[in-house]
Amino acid sequence: MAQKPSIPKGTRDFGPVEMSRRNYIFDTIRQVFRLYGFSPIETPAMENLSTLMGKYGEEGDKLLFKILNSGNYLRGVDMPAEPETATPAFTSAISEKGLRYDLTVPFARFVVQHRNELQMPFKRYQIQPVWRADRPQKGRYREFYQCDADVVGSDSLLNEVELLRLINDVFNRLGIRVIIKINNRKILSGIAELIGAPEKIVEITVAIDKIDKIGLDGVTAELAERGLSAEAIATLTPIITLQGSTAERLEALSSLLADSPTGLLGVEELREILTTLDACGMEANIELDVSLARGLNYYTGTIIEVKAADVAIGSITGGGRYDNLTGVFGMPGLSGVGISFGADRIYDVLTQLNLFPDSTLASTQVMFVNFGARESIEALRIMDTLRSHGIACELYPDQAKMKKQMGRADALHIPFVAIIGADEIAQGKLTLKNMSTGEQNLLTIPEAIATIQSVK
Amino acid sequence: MAQKPSIPKGTRDFGPVEMSRRNYIFDTIRQVFRLYGFSPIETPAMENLSTLMGKYGEEGDKLLFKILNSGNYLRGVDMPAEPETATPAFTSAISEKGLRYDLTVPFARFVVQHRNELQMPFKRYQIQPVWRADRPQKGRYREFYQCDADVVGSDSLLNEVELLRLINDVFNRLGIRVIIKINNRKILSGIAELIGAPEKIVEITVAIDKIDKIGLDGVTAELAERGLSAEAIATLTPIITLQGSTAERLEALSSLLADSPTGLLGVEELREILTTLDACGMEANIELDVSLARGLNYYTGTIIEVKAADVAIGSITGGGRYDNLTGVFGMPGLSGVGISFGADRIYDVLTQLNLFPDSTLASTQVMFVNFGARESIEALRIMDTLRSHGIACELYPDQAKMKKQMGRADALHIPFVAIIGADEIAQGKLTLKNMSTGEQNLLTIPEAIATIQSVK
Repeated sequence: MAQKPSIPKGTRDFGPVEMSRRNYIFDTIRQVFRLYGFSPIETPAMENLSTLMGKYGEEGDKLLFKILNSGNYLRGVDMPAEPETATPAFTSAISEKGLRYDLTVPFARFVVQHRNELQMPFKRYQIQPVWRADRPQKGRYREFYQCDADVVGSDSLLNEVELLRLINDVFNRLGIRVIIKINNRKILSGIAELIGAPEKIVEITVAIDKIDKIGLDGVTAELAERGLSAEAIATLTPIITLQGSTAERLEALSSLLADSPTGLLGVEELREILTTLDACGMEANIELDVSLARGLNYYTGTIIEVKAADVAIGSITGGGRYDNLTGVFGMPGLSGVGISFGADRIYDVLTQLNLFPDSTLASTQVMFVNFGARESIEALRIMDTLRSHGIACELYPDQAKMKKQMGRADALHIPFVAIIGADEIAQGKLTLKNMSTGEQNLLTIPEAIATIQSVK
Repeated sequence: MAQKPSIPKGTRDFGPVEMSRRNYIFDTIRQVFRLYGFSPIETPAMENLSTLMGKYGEEGDKLLFKILNSGNYLRGVDMPAEPETATPAFTSAISEKGLRYDLTVPFARFVVQHRNELQMPFKRYQIQPVWRADRPQKGRYREFYQCDADVVGSDSLLNEVELLRLINDVFNRLGIRVIIKINNRKILSGIAELIGAPEKIVEITVAIDKIDKIGLDGVTAELAERGLSAEAIATLTPIITLQGSTAERLEALSSLLADSPTGLLGVEELREILTTLDACGMEANIELDVSLARGLNYYTGTIIEVKAADVAIGSITGGGRYDNLTGVFGMPGLSGVGISFGADRIYDVLTQLNLFPDSTLASTQVMFVNFGARESIEALRIMDTLRSHGIACELYPDQAKMKKQMGRADALHIPFVAIIGADEIAQGKLTLKNMSTGEQNLLTIPEAIATIQSVK
C-alpha cells in the first residue's frame, strides 16, 4: 500500500533554490566568523537529558524532544501509578537522551568536558540545527539552525568590540542596513539599586523590555502591578524615556546613576566600547537602548540586539556577556561574550528586500545538449576542462528533443547552454547560448570559459 | 550540585582541528558535487515513523531512534498487557517520529512529496547526519554524516559515467589513490538464471560477496549449504574466479552468459560505461568485480564500490542503480543511480596517509599581540584591512605577558604573529613574525598581506 508521504509539523524540506540561498547566508556568516578568529566546533544532536534538563526553566524542559531508550525500554521500569498519566519519573526511566534545544548549553558542556584541551580565551563558532517542541506557527519551527560565536575565558571589552565589528561586517556583506541596539546589564542593576528594589531586577527588565510594545503607560502600570512604589516608578521614568544621541544619553545616565557604582561601571563599559569602535573607524548605526534586556536573566554585562532598518521583523541577531556559563557543570567563574544570528529571519529580510544574488538561483552554470553518443563524448571531454576552471556543468543525460532539453535549462535557471554538433567537433569549438539574452556564439573553449566566468 | 558532563555513547564532539579537517573533506565533496551539476537539498532530522518503519528490514526498525510524543504522551494509550514489556503497539502509540536512519528514504519521500516542483532528471546531493541505535564500536558511531548524490528520472548510462568521473575527481583532489570496483546486478541475475536458480539470487550474491573474506572454498561450502547443487556450483566457479584484465573478464563473461539475455545486457552496460570513460580520457583504476554485490537487494543495474589503494579499511564510497526508489511511497518506476561517500573512513584514510593540508591545523592566520589600548586600536584598524583581503586574524584580548600571548599563537598553530608598538605606529608598519621559521620583519601593510597570503 502506498503511503502519502509527509513530514512532521513544524519541520521543513529545503529544495535547491532555498538551500542555495540558505547557504549564501551560512557561508557569509561562517566566512566572517573565520576572519575574526573564531574556530568551528560541532556537538552531537543528542545530549544526555541530565545535561539539558533544568537549564531552560520549567517551560523549556517541556519543549525538549526526548528520545525513547533502545531495546525493551520498559524492562525494570515502574509503570506510572495512575494509568494514562506520564510522570516525570516514568519519562526519565524510558528516555535518557534528548535533542539539543540550543547551542549554548551544549557549548558549556563542551567547554567543561574538554577544559584541559582548550586554549583560553577559547573562540568558537557553531552552526547547527536545534529542536524545540514548540507550537509551530508562522516563522516558528520545531527544527531550525542557530549560528553562534562566543569568546570565553576573557573579560576584556575588546571582545565586545570585535563582536560588534563582526556583526557589522556580516550585515554589510549581506547588504542589510541594521540598527545595533546596545545596553549593559549593570546599568539595569544600577537602576534597580537606585530605586531601592534590587530584588525586583528581573521584573523591572521584563517590564522595561515591553516598552516598544505597550508604551510608557503600559510599563508604568505593569511596574505598579509588580509592587513598585509610585516613587520608585517616578525615579525610573526619566531613565526609561531618555532622549538624545547615544553620547548624550550616556552622559545623562552618568548623572542619574551617580550613586550606583554598579550602574556607573555599566555606563563606563559602554562608553569604552563605543569610543574604541569610533577610534578604529567603524561606521554603524549603534544605539544605546536602556529598555533592552533580552528577557534572559543570563547576561551580566553588555547586551546586544540587532534589528533590520528596512523590515519590521524583530531581532535578527542578539547576544551579550555572561559570567557563569559553565557553573552548572562544575566550572564556575568563566566569563564570556557571545552572539547568535537568526538565519531564518535573515532569510526573510533578504527575501523581502530582494537582496539574494542571482547566482543563488542556480548552482549549475552550463548545460550541454545531448545530440548522441559521439557528441556526448566530446561534451564530456570539454566539461572536464570547464570543471578544472571551477565551472559547474552537466550533460543532458538522454537524447531527448531539443525543446525538452532547453526546457530543463530554462526551468533550472541555468545561465548557459552549450551545443556541440558535428560542425563544432570539426572546428574544436562549441556554440554557447546565453539563456537570458538569447545570444548565441561559436567560441573556442578558452573563449567559452571567459564568457561563462564573466557572468557569474 | 555540579554534574560531570558527558555525551551519549556512540556520539562525538568535534573540536576546531577535527572540524577543519572534516570540513576539508565535506567542502571537497560538495564542490565536486556542484561541478557535476548536483544541487543541494536538506530534509528534517525527524521523519514520521510511518515513513521510516519497514524500509530497513526488521533489524533496521530496531535501530531507529524514536522520539517520545510531547505533552502527556500516555493519554488515551492502552498500557502493554504484560508489565515491563514494550509492545510495538505501545511504542507506536507513544512515539510518532524518529531520527532519519539514512538519506535514501528521506530522499525518496522528498521526491514523491515534491514531484510536481521537481525538474526530471533530478540531480540532488545531500550532506547531513544520520542516526542509528547500533552497538557503538571502533569506527561505528550512532551519529554520522552521509554524503549522497543521486540522479533520478533518467536511465541513461551517462549518469553512471558522470558519477564515476565524479568519484575519481573527489579522490584525485583529496590525493587518495583508489580502486573503483564495478559490477552489474544484471550479471548476477544472469548467473542465477544460468545455474537454474533465479530464486536463489539473494543467497548467491550474499555468498559471493564474502569471497574476499572466506575464499572460494568458503563460498562453495556456503552455496552448498544454501541448497545449490554441485552442478550449479561447478557452473558458478569459473565465473567467481575469473582472471585477467577487466576487458578480458567482460569478454569471458559474454561467452559464459551467452544464454542469458539479462546477463548479456549487464555485460553490455558495463562495456558501454567503460568504453565511454576511456573515450573521454579518464585515467582511473577501475576493476570489474563479479563478487561485488553490496549486500543490498536494492540495486538493479550498475554496482560501484571504492576502496583506498594504500589503506586496508573497507569501502570508502559505494553506490549503484536502482529501479524503484519511490514505489513504496506510491510513485513506481522511477529509475535512478546514486553514490554515497563515507566521510568517517575517508577521514581515517587521510589521517593514516598524512594527507591533510597544513592549512587545516589553524583557521586563524595572524594573531596581533596586545600592548595596550592605543596599540590595540591601531591593530584593530590594520585587522580591518587584512580581513578585507580575506586574511583571518585576531587580537589577543588581554594585555597579558608577551610569553603568554606568544604561547597562544604557538598552541593554536597560528602561522604569524603581528607586533605593533610605538615604533611601528610611528612608521605605519608592523612587525610580522613567522612562527615556524622564527623570522621577524618590519613590513608595510601591503608587504605583510603578501607575506601572509604567500604561506596560506
